[in-house]
Amino acid sequence: MKKMIIASTSTVHGSGPLEYLLPTLEEFFKGVDEIVFIPYARPSGVSYDEYTQKVSSAFEKIDISVKGVHEFHNPKEAVKNAQAIFTGGGNTFELVNQLYQHDLIDTLKNVLERGIPYLGTSAGSNICGVSMKTTNDMPVVYPPSFDTLAMIPFNINAHYLDPDPNSTHMGETRETRIKEFHIFNTTPVLGLREGSWLEVIQDAIKLKGSLTARLFQREKTPVEIEPESDLGNFLS
Amino acid sequence: MKKMIIASTSTVHGSGPLEYLLPTLEEFFKGVDEIVFIPYARPSGVSYDEYTQKVSSAFEKIDISVKGVHEFHNPKEAVKNAQAIFTGGGNTFELVNQLYQHDLIDTLKNVLERGIPYLGTSAGSNICGVSMKTTNDMPVVYPPSFDTLAMIPFNINAHYLDPDPNSTHMGETRETRIKEFHIFNTTPVLGLREGSWLEVIQDAIKLKGSLTARLFQREKTPVEIEPESDLGNFLS
Repeated sequence: MKKMIIASTSTVHGSGPLEYLLPTLEEFFKGVDEIVFIPYARPSGVSYDEYTQKVSSAFEKIDISVKGVHEFHNPKEAVKNAQAIFTGGGNTFELVNQLYQHDLIDTLKNVLERGIPYLGTSAGSNICGVSMKTTNDMPVVYPPSFDTLAMIPFNINAHYLDPDPNSTHMGETRETRIKEFHIFNTTPVLGLREGSWLEVIQDAIKLKGSLTARLFQREKTPVEIEPESDLGNFLS
Repeated sequence: MKKMIIASTSTVHGSGPLEYLLPTLEEFFKGVDEIVFIPYARPSGVSYDEYTQKVSSAFEKIDISVKGVHEFHNPKEAVKNAQAIFTGGGNTFELVNQLYQHDLIDTLKNVLERGIPYLGTSAGSNICGVSMKTTNDMPVVYPPSFDTLAMIPFNINAHYLDPDPNSTHMGETRETRIKEFHIFNTTPVLGLREGSWLEVIQDAIKLKGSLTARLFQREKTPVEIEPESDLGNFLS
């Protein structure tokens, strides 16, 4: 009995942190008083306390209190006993590194399989996939493994960006990078544009938001998935 | 006695592979008949043979033949006996992974310290730094380590891109990513723009090309380095 929201980004352009998601979150977290927040991804190197404070301000608007997992004496127990969990964005390498350092991977997986509501944004969404091998982040630290929670049978590419036809830059486009991933891996990859999220209820994985998402499968032409579609129908 | 060219990119917009560098390479590789090419980075997943063929066509224009390191029975011996070496761009994770699989890291380091001329572009330049932790590439494979050749006392960020003031994208800018690197690491990082390269002769590391490069040091304001400067003067 999974219950998850897996969002491309915490923040869309021109709006406050989590603002675009708040109506959805209010419904999704109905009955939850307190969320345990995992701040390990540290966007721009912000401290755990500062990051938790920022998230707390956003959730105040829907009357939910937020406690950072680092504030607990035993992070593992905190995750096990959480009413709900939110993992924020930042650097996926450092997030995964810390999850392994605190031996939280299996604990988190078990809790999510029990149906404890989970919100992930950006890096916090990447870890819901099979591996973190389709993150856009810089490998600033070396985690003990790239394997992640595998709560969905594919990988996420958060902040998915379409190729810019006017670009003169010679670095790889996002699509080229994902194609390179499929030279070495068979896991499907969902390019989630900013403003899109997945709603996972048990085995149903529905695309939400107003945009389409781009699904890449090895040796297949990528396809655009319409909002409200169940991803399960497209995976082979 | 090092002798290296460490270039941001193999190709600048609107020009053929290596074209902008050919006059420099003709001078740099004077007396060299054959280059050993390391194709492990496989841009867009191209095969070693195809990649070597493409590079061979470029070097034909300056009368140098190219042999892929994969064509030799023993890659280690090939590197040891090379007149000159070129490592091309592509995916840095896969490049580093293959260098470790073939146990070539120390061999390459020794050869370069002996003064065998070396050209690196993009991923092939990233490996000249202390670690590959400032690559832009996607972590499509898990290498046994992020440590690289450390032929220069800093890291390279190839294809360096300035922040786009008009962007509405919420993903991290390159500068933010490098700042995140400096939360966890002390190694300086040089952002090399496309069209720039470093010429390393012994301990002198000179910036070449017409553009400035951006040097990031931990807890310092980034500085722009002018062409023809010696990087050693800026590292503290």
